[in-house]
Order: sequence, then structure tokens, then C-alpha cells
Amino acid sequence: MTHLPFALLLSGDPEALSLAVRLLIIFGSAKLLAELCERLGQPGIIGEILAGVLIGPSVLGWVQPDAFTHTMASLGVLFLLFRVGLEVEAEELIKLGGTAVAVGVLGVVIPFLAGFVFYWLAGREQMEAVFLGTALTATSVGITAQVLAARKLLHRTAAKIILGAAIIDDILALLLLGGVSSIANGTVNVGEIALTTLFAVGFIVIVARWGHQAVGEVTRRIGGQMQSGEAEFAFAMVFLFALAALSEKVGVAAIIGAFLAGMAISKSVPPRVHDLAHGVTELLVPFFLAEIGLHFRLEVFQDSRVVILALILIPVAILSKLFGCGLGALRHGKVIATRVGAGMIPRGEFCMVVAQTGLALGALKADTYAMIVLMAVVAATIAPPMLHWAFRGVLRPDETLAEVRTIW
Amino acid sequence: MTHLPFALLLSGDPEALSLAVRLLIIFGSAKLLAELCERLGQPGIIGEILAGVLIGPSVLGWVQPDAFTHTMASLGVLFLLFRVGLEVEAEELIKLGGTAVAVGVLGVVIPFLAGFVFYWLAGREQMEAVFLGTALTATSVGITAQVLAARKLLHRTAAKIILGAAIIDDILALLLLGGVSSIANGTVNVGEIALTTLFAVGFIVIVARWGHQAVGEVTRRIGGQMQSGEAEFAFAMVFLFALAALSEKVGVAAIIGAFLAGMAISKSVPPRVHDLAHGVTELLVPFFLAEIGLHFRLEVFQDSRVVILALILIPVAILSKLFGCGLGALRHGKVIATRVGAGMIPRGEFCMVVAQTGLALGALKADTYAMIVLMAVVAATIAPPMLHWAFRGVLRPDETLAEVRTIW
Repeated sequence: MTHLPFALLLSGDPEALSLAVRLLIIFGSAKLLAELCERLGQPGIIGEILAGVLIGPSVLGWVQPDAFTHTMASLGVLFLLFRVGLEVEAEELIKLGGTAVAVGVLGVVIPFLAGFVFYWLAGREQMEAVFLGTALTATSVGITAQVLAARKLLHRTAAKIILGAAIIDDILALLLLGGVSSIANGTVNVGEIALTTLFAVGFIVIVARWGHQAVGEVTRRIGGQMQSGEAEFAFAMVFLFALAALSEKVGVAAIIGAFLAGMAISKSVPPRVHDLAHGVTELLVPFFLAEIGLHFRLEVFQDSRVVILALILIPVAILSKLFGCGLGALRHGKVIATRVGAGMIPRGEFCMVVAQTGLALGALKADTYAMIVLMAVVAATIAPPMLHWAFRGVLRPDETLAEVRTIW
Repeated sequence: MTHLPFALLLSGDPEALSLAVRLLIIFGSAKLLAELCERLGQPGIIGEILAGVLIGPSVLGWVQPDAFTHTMASLGVLFLLFRVGLEVEAEELIKLGGTAVAVGVLGVVIPFLAGFVFYWLAGREQMEAVFLGTALTATSVGITAQVLAARKLLHRTAAKIILGAAIIDDILALLLLGGVSSIANGTVNVGEIALTTLFAVGFIVIVARWGHQAVGEVTRRIGGQMQSGEAEFAFAMVFLFALAALSEKVGVAAIIGAFLAGMAISKSVPPRVHDLAHGVTELLVPFFLAEIGLHFRLEVFQDSRVVILALILIPVAILSKLFGCGLGALRHGKVIATRVGAGMIPRGEFCMVVAQTGLALGALKADTYAMIVLMAVVAATIAPPMLHWAFRGVLRPDETLAEVRTIW
């Protein structure tokens, strides 16, 4: 397929594109490049991120990141984490809770310190170094979740540690951003931060521990009594949106609520709800992945200082997570520790939020902002092949041994 | 369920609501009121439209119609028509083509004349009467499609006539709006209008007649060769978006392309694609229905002139479609003619487009605009029970005769 069918539909101004054309360009290019990557032996997810780079402002300029792409991307990652939750059992996640906490804490502390020290040594202002460190803390678990789900590896120990750690990671990173922003603002309220922590942890513990029991009862009743068609699916959606909204209220990301919702509901809902939710996820996830690529800006390479700093920052960002999180999971052996470390590498939307907050508060300079965004796109693209490598030789339930041997 | 859980999540300014909260409010209220309506023996679809009125600016003021709700609504109706297309066979639609053309043409001409004469008799300016007539022409087939799909009636003769007529109706209404706008602008280009007609009709005929043969071959090949997961679903989505985008290019609505895409693909794709697409539709359709209700403005009732005009306009709008379209289908007997007439009553997004265009061109006054929007909301709400009444006594494949007797 050449660019011709796409190009014919473009009428010059990217703002004027209709909904159907934008859907076609983003979804179509993501799936096309995913297929290409799969054929080259690479994870399809890389193709979907690179599709965003390709159609984005720096290369073809067909689509700009805007409110529409942001909405579709947010919906995509919400449903992605919901689907992952549907495939995970709360008990097993709780069993691995100790390791998850260690991975989560070390995976925030070490990248933060690494980022801070790097920028401090580079002679930048202390506050800017603090923001850079903060930007390195939060893992974008959606990338890893998609790789693991596509390869049917969500039931592995490393996968469960990663998912548990991502929750801890998210709480800590959001608290850190709150704290750092208040310091930059000159208004620190320790009581408020403590209260947020308490709410967030309490909410997650309650939902993870007792959520599926409470929901099980409700779902069984609804299944029998509701008059509307597909009532169980409707209930699952309401539950997903409610927990996502509540998560935000207690100070955690909406996607954590989506994950908890999926986990709480997984045993109670019939397979049909899984299939219907799967359709939504299949449609929306490419928009989440392509949107990461849309943020890539070629013009940052015109400033050689940004390029040099990024060339140092990218390994710092990758290695600090790989070793920080790996350290936390070391008690499960080196293989699992490597898998966990690799799975925690991706960065995404949180980086952009930190960078934007720092910019708005005047604590971050424009070149640092550009560098952080570049780092996030590169880390998101590098993580999937690293994860494939870390999980090399693992049998997929639907793979025969012969197939695996050819991969070796 | 009280309003409390929703109210707790609201933080005053509707603009500041997060994605998850908006999803929860719109989807949750739509499904809640749908269930309520079903229990009261009314079609659930009314509840979903009324949910939009309830949460919208005139009652609770929780959600404003904006770019987000519009995007979700447009996605919803796109997937709704795609799903309907999946359940319809092109050959059967073409067999009923003669009746569909008669219904489509009479269903545009008679409502247009009725609207024009009514406003001309009311002493309004000629151009305003022309715009009002135009606003009455286009059926919002999504409403009817949803009712018929929910009751599993899409295989009935009347349903197929309605779907075919909706295509004709859409072409004629869009041409009429184009023509009327050029007259109001003072720039009429007959050649351009003729060319648009030719393109639109040619495109539809080609896709409807040969689309499924061409697609069948491609789908079978893709199913075997693609490396990515759910490749057939991805292909179906790309095909849907491509036909929707192409439809717009040749001058027809995107939803017509979505319908043709579903019809062309229905025989070639495996049941799994139907299920996945069904999940997307189930999620998005409530946003389409609630968004109709969001446009309702209570303040129009403060102007008694608007109320009186609306009290005349609403029966004019309903009866002109009922009799106009019924007349076109009379050769199939009175029962089918009534069903077709009732199914063509709903108005929706096209009304709003005509009203906005007329307002922007200065041809329409603000009170007429408010009245048209009110008429669209009322017609969309009244049509489902009329349709239920017209199809009374029809066995659903999953209903026993005893159940039907109790409805009688």
C-alpha cells in the first residue's frame, strides 16, 4: 500500500480533517506499521508508536496531537489497563505484594536520584534537576501491559510483580509531583500530602482485597434482573468509569482505577463481557500508542545541546529503572529481576505531565522539556524489544515447542 | 441509586470534569434511565435520550454539549450504522431498491413542502421557510436502527426499506442543503450539484452492488497471512473508516459509508469480528443518544411564540414523514407502510447542521433555531414508541408466543 489512498483524503489543513479521516490515518497507519514490525520480527507495538512519529508534525504532518488524539489515547490506556485487570487475579497480586512494594519504591527512588544527580552535575539549577528526577519516576505501564497481553504472558510471576509495582510507582510518583510542585510554588502542606497518601493506599487496598467479593454478588443479581440488552457489559463499564473517577479523587491515576475495576470484576462477569471489552480495547489501544509518537519533535535535533543531554539522559532513564526495579525483585532470581526491570522501563504520559508542570511553574527550561519528551518516546520504543528479549524462550500457551526453537 | 455517587464526583465547573467522570455521568445515566424505561414498558432508547436532557444544561447542568460529547456521539452513530450494515445483505436491499427510492424521495419532498408552507403561512420570510423545510428532510436513521437492532427486527421487509430509503434520503437532503446554502449565499453552481449527485450515487451503487465480492476475497487472504493479533478486526476497522471518509469526499454522510462498509464485509468476516465490533457499539451508542438530549434547552419555553410554533411544527414534522414515507411504501400493504413511515420519523444531527448553517448565513432567526432543535429532540424521543407500536405483535426470534400475547 502506498501513501496515495491516505494522501488523496487530505485537504491541506490538519485542523479541517473530518473524524473519519483522522480515524483512518491514525488507526490505519498504526496497524500497517505494526504488521510491518511483526514481519521484521519486532513487537508490533513499536510500529504503532512509530506510526505516530510518521504521521505526526515532524515527518508527514498529517495529524497534530490535540484534544481529539488526547481523548482517544486516554480512552485507549483506560481500556488497556481494564483488560489487563480482567486477566489478573487479586489474590496472586497480593501474594507478591512485598516484592511489588520493593520494586515500586526502588523504581522511584533510584531513577529520581539518577536524574537529579545527572542534571546537577550538568550544572543546572537545583529545582530543574528535581523536576527532571521526578519526570524519570513514573513507569508507563500501558506499554508493558500491551506487550505482555499480546504475548499472553500476564499470568507469569514477573508480569504480576510489574503490575503491582506499577500501582506503588504511580502513587509515589503522583505524590512526588505534588510535593515538588508545592515546593516550586512555595506552598508545602505536609498534612495534605499525608492525607492523600492515606486515602490512595486505603482505596487501593480495599478495592484489591475485597472488591471482587462485593462485585461478584452485585453482578450475579444484575445479570438476572436487568431488562436492558447486554446489561452485564453496561454494568462493567459503569464500574470501570466509577473506579477510574474515584481513583482520581483519592489522588491516583484513572488507569489504576481501571486496572482495579478489571481485577475486581474478572471472575464475576461472563466471557461475553470479556469479548465485548476486548473489542473496545482493540479499537482504542492503537490511538494510545500512536499518540506517544505524535509528541516526537524532529526540531529538537537542531539544538546540539539537547541531543547531547538526551544521549546521556536516555541511558540514565533506562538503566536506573532496569537496575532499580531489578534490585527490588532480586529475591525471585536474576531472570525474573531482569524481566521486571525491563518491564518498568517505559515512560509516557506522566513524563509529559511533569515536564508541562515544570514549564508552567518556570522551574523547567524549554530545552529540558524537549529532552524529556524525546526520552519518553525513545524509552517507550526501546522497552518492547527489551521485554521480548527478557522473556525469550517462554512458551506461549498457543505456541508449540518447535515454534519456540525457531525463535531461539 | 440516588444522585449522590454522581454528585460527589462533581467539582462545580463542568469544563474541569475529567474524562472518567464524564464517561461515568453520560454512560451511567443513559444506562440507568434506559433500564427504568424498559421496566415501564417503554423502549430503552428513550431513557438514553432523556438522560442527555437530565444531565444537560437545562436540568442538572452536569455536562455541556462540546467537542468531547460530539466526538463520542459521532463515533457512536458511525459504529451503530456499521453494525446495522453487518446484519443486512446487499442483495435483499437492492431487491427493495424501487420502494426505497420512492420512500426516500417522497420522504424528502413532502416534509420539505410541509415545512415551507407552514412557515410561509406563519408569515415568515421565504428564505427562512426554505431552511425550515430543509431541516425537516433528513431522517436520523440511527435512532430507528438502534430500535430495530435491539428488537432483532433488521431482517424484516420494512427494516430493509427504511435502511435503503435512509441512504436516498441522506443524498437528497445533503444536496438540498448544498443547494439552499448556495442560494442563500447567492452562488448557485448547477454543474457542481449535478457532479456531486453523480459521484454520490455512483459510489453507493458500486459499493452496494460489488463491495462484498471485492472485500470477500481480500478478507480471506488477510485472515491467513497477517502476523498481528486480531488482524481481521483491524482490517474491518480500516475498511469502515476508509469508506466513511470516502463517503464524505463524494458528498454523502460518513454514516452511510459506515453502513455500506458493514454490508460489504458482513459475509466475509468471522463471528469474532462481529462480537468485537458489537462491544465498541455497545459502549459508544449511549453517547450518541444522550448527546441528542444534551441539545435540549429549557429556556426556549420562556418564549411563548417558540412554544406555539413548536406545537405546530412537531406534528408537521412527524406526520409529513409518516405519510410521505408511508405513501412510498404503500405497494407493500398498509402494515409495512406504517412501519416504514414510523421508522423514518426521527430527526437528529442533520437538523442541527441545517439550523446552524441557516443561522450562520443569516437566513434563520434564533427562535426558529431553538424550535428546530426542540423538534429534533421530541421527534427522536417519540419515534421509538411509535415504532414499537407499528411492529406490535411481531415475534422476536427469542420470544415465545405466550410472551407476545401478554404484550397484546
